Amino acid sequence: MAFTLQQLADNTGARLAGSGDVLIDSVADIAGGKVGSIIFAASGKYAKYLNTTDASAVIASEKLLAGCDKPALVTDHPRVVFAKIAALLYPKPEVRPWISPDAVIADDADIDASARIEACVVVQAGASIGPGTWISPGCVIEDNVRIGANVRLYANVTIGADCVVGDNSVLHSGAVIGADGFGFVWDTDRYIKVPQLGTVHIGKDVEIGANTSVDRGAIGATVIENGVKIDNQIQLGHNDHIGEHTTISGHTGIAGSVKVGRRSIIGGAVAISDNLEIADDVVLTGRSSVANSIKHAGIYSSAIPVIEAKKWRRILARIKQLDDMVKRIKDLESKTP
Amino acid sequence: MAFTLQQLADNTGARLAGSGDVLIDSVADIAGGKVGSIIFAASGKYAKYLNTTDASAVIASEKLLAGCDKPALVTDHPRVVFAKIAALLYPKPEVRPWISPDAVIADDADIDASARIEACVVVQAGASIGPGTWISPGCVIEDNVRIGANVRLYANVTIGADCVVGDNSVLHSGAVIGADGFGFVWDTDRYIKVPQLGTVHIGKDVEIGANTSVDRGAIGATVIENGVKIDNQIQLGHNDHIGEHTTISGHTGIAGSVKVGRRSIIGGAVAISDNLEIADDVVLTGRSSVANSIKHAGIYSSAIPVIEAKKWRRILARIKQLDDMVKRIKDLESKTP
Amino acid sequence: MAFTLQQLADNTGARLAGSGDVLIDSVADIAGGKVGSIIFAASGKYAKYLNTTDASAVIASEKLLAGCDKPALVTDHPRVVFAKIAALLYPKPEVRPWISPDAVIADDADIDASARIEACVVVQAGASIGPGTWISPGCVIEDNVRIGANVRLYANVTIGADCVVGDNSVLHSGAVIGADGFGFVWDTDRYIKVPQLGTVHIGKDVEIGANTSVDRGAIGATVIENGVKIDNQIQLGHNDHIGEHTTISGHTGIAGSVKVGRRSIIGGAVAISDNLEIADDVVLTGRSSVANSIKHAGIYSSAIPVIEAKKWRRILARIKQLDDMVKRIKDLESKTP
Repeated sequence: MAFTLQQLADNTGARLAGSGDVLIDSVADIAGGKVGSIIFAASGKYAKYLNTTDASAVIASEKLLAGCDKPALVTDHPRVVFAKIAALLYPKPEVRPWISPDAVIADDADIDASARIEACVVVQAGASIGPGTWISPGCVIEDNVRIGANVRLYANVTIGADCVVGDNSVLHSGAVIGADGFGFVWDTDRYIKVPQLGTVHIGKDVEIGANTSVDRGAIGATVIENGVKIDNQIQLGHNDHIGEHTTISGHTGIAGSVKVGRRSIIGGAVAISDNLEIADDVVLTGRSSVANSIKHAGIYSSAIPVIEAKKWRRILARIKQLDDMVKRIKDLESKTP
Repeated sequence: MAFTLQQLADNTGARLAGSGDVLIDSVADIAGGKVGSIIFAASGKYAKYLNTTDASAVIASEKLLAGCDKPALVTDHPRVVFAKIAALLYPKPEVRPWISPDAVIADDADIDASARIEACVVVQAGASIGPGTWISPGCVIEDNVRIGANVRLYANVTIGADCVVGDNSVLHSGAVIGADGFGFVWDTDRYIKVPQLGTVHIGKDVEIGANTSVDRGAIGATVIENGVKIDNQIQLGHNDHIGEHTTISGHTGIAGSVKVGRRSIIGGAVAISDNLEIADDVVLTGRSSVANSIKHAGIYSSAIPVIEAKKWRRILARIKQLDDMVKRIKDLESKTP
Repeated sequence: MAFTLQQLADNTGARLAGSGDVLIDSVADIAGGKVGSIIFAASGKYAKYLNTTDASAVIASEKLLAGCDKPALVTDHPRVVFAKIAALLYPKPEVRPWISPDAVIADDADIDASARIEACVVVQAGASIGPGTWISPGCVIEDNVRIGANVRLYANVTIGADCVVGDNSVLHSGAVIGADGFGFVWDTDRYIKVPQLGTVHIGKDVEIGANTSVDRGAIGATVIENGVKIDNQIQLGHNDHIGEHTTISGHTGIAGSVKVGRRSIIGGAVAISDNLEIADDVVLTGRSSVANSIKHAGIYSSAIPVIEAKKWRRILARIKQLDDMVKRIKDLESKTP
């Protein structure tokens, strides 16, 4: 597939600079441009490539493009324009309707005629699968699950009974939706299970990463609102509620009954304790630990970046002496006029 | 299913207060009570709901119930009583014996006549599956695995060769039991593998969460004793030994050859180094790092909760100056009479 | 299978001490030696076992063996010799060529005649599988995947379209190779996806643990070089590049576009931010957080090991006062002659 630079400008809303006739048939990374490709520069760090690249066109801000004579798309959002062009040049494969003879479908499951169900998929009683939805091999769709339109389940995804997946959502391989929440109470001499009676409601345009787990609610639903993007290896506990357009990066764990606001950006390897509330527009940088609710938008952190192990051991020793240090300061203050 | 409050009192050992005739057909969360339901209040924080709820009955301590005229179950353990009532009202579905024609079972596998084996399950040579055990689609049970009675494997669980799962245990989707431990030694110019010859022994009444991995022993078994409850996304290394009735929350990783005591409570996102011993009745709060054995029961922590990123950056700078701070304090002390 | 101690010496290059005729048919751990078995002592901590064990022979350094009269293999690398002996005594099971009638193989997939493909494996169009490769039940091999010779995929592994797995590599159950990287850009009022157009290239002699995820590149490949060993529950982001013979322990997460050098040792639960470069021969101890590139070989840390929760809470309070402490020290300095 190929487009003229003019067509790409028209499609993305970027401003054309230079010849609109140049043909673009591929995207490349900033250092890998070759004839026919387009690259983008997101910041001044990459400006040096704009003039030297073999790419046929570039995407950058007016400022970065000063002095560049390549055909260009001028925009304040080069990454957005690049993403749109990549989507044009590499369209998602068409969903060819099919039910594999090696899929196992319950008699009363309701599969739209335009859906694609591949081999070794199991769809259980009462489940429904919407138009244009594509289910890769090895997925298990349990009783009464409702999956909307144009959903993509990659291979080996599990959706537990009664859960709901909204239109256009994408679940990557190994994701497990609707396992029991971690609910046990100590009764005299052993734990007994708190029955996990709820479900999971996944909204529209949600993406859920590989090997991520989203537990069902204990009572009521675990909710992932529209437009939420969740990376790999993530744990969401029972009755979590993730507000729309929030993103959660890899290896983050959120304990049960946490309400996360809208448009929040939760970094990787973050840990959030249970029963908390996180406001809208909160940024948690990577490896943050959250033990209390966060009431105001803002950026929050608590990770300590590495230093040489020898130095770190000395600092650790000092950290343990902090209380003593304060006492010594106080003592000095009392003696100093 | 419905019970009178009297029946629920009889079944749970809680004391009845008010009419025992009221019919209860559902549980609800504290804010969601409606006619026919029962709710519980675990602490004073929720006392306000006891009088205003539409629920037909409530569960709480005598103290919280002072002044409440709802029909009630009085108990010092409201959460336990609630869990028991939920188990009565929402009994686990009956296991209907069946071997799906779409399961693939080795000729010499030993499947109890009362077990249920669903589609796309693979049971390999010499494996045995006990009475009342239910295996959901996509599970793989390798050679010589022994699974006890009334076990539940949810979809897409893998049990490696020779591993053992005790009665009444529950394994959630994506759990992997018996992968090789991480054993390699450097030999001149590359790593060679230390063969992982052991197995995994899972006791009775164990629960293992979604996408959790439990490695087989290098020599001998990785052992999970009776009553242990393990959440999602957890990693247990080769030859770990988890004492009975210990709980481990999501995203915790335990390296190899760690012995964890009984009734310990290990929070989420905890990391424990290899070859350590953790005593009985240890509580590790979330995001703890354990680098040395813990010899005494108690509560241990090392997580730093988030603060605003700007402030945190300043604190980080100060942490790096700790050694210098101590020197300055010493210097002042030497100059102060 | 059994070998004389002489044969084991010959095979491993260790020096024989005492009778070479003793027959060895098993390995044991240091405390579990019994007749016919061989054990190893890696350090002085275990020297006491050398004379008291029931094992028929021992492996240790000359120094540890001083005064030990057991038949022995003398070596400076007891763990390496032990691993080699274990590999001799417990050879990997032979791969019996087979394509299960319950596997689902695309017409144009290219499966070597000596490969083994078990039940409920799905191999899609254009995929190729090399000689001696063994694919356990439930694996999904998507379009155009290329898998080399003598590879082992354990049950329920997913390999996404176009990815490559080199000879002799081992992937454990639940591993997901080639899911989309986490690439989204905010466009006015929602995130749009950056198409993930790349693949994953896994080299030779690589091992990848259970439930680990390796994302495909956004453009170009995510690369895992020869000899890399990756544990369970790990997340590697798009376009990561892991240098040969590096090891990565459980629960570590590496964000996108990170270049890790050769022979590095990355501990468990490490978090590495995106777009960084880590030099060769770097050791990151467990629970390290890496927010900047590391340019020099060495050992780096940032984990805080647990202490009693009460003490930790006091230290936490002091950490927040660090800025104030520095001010007070300065103030004292200004007043002290």
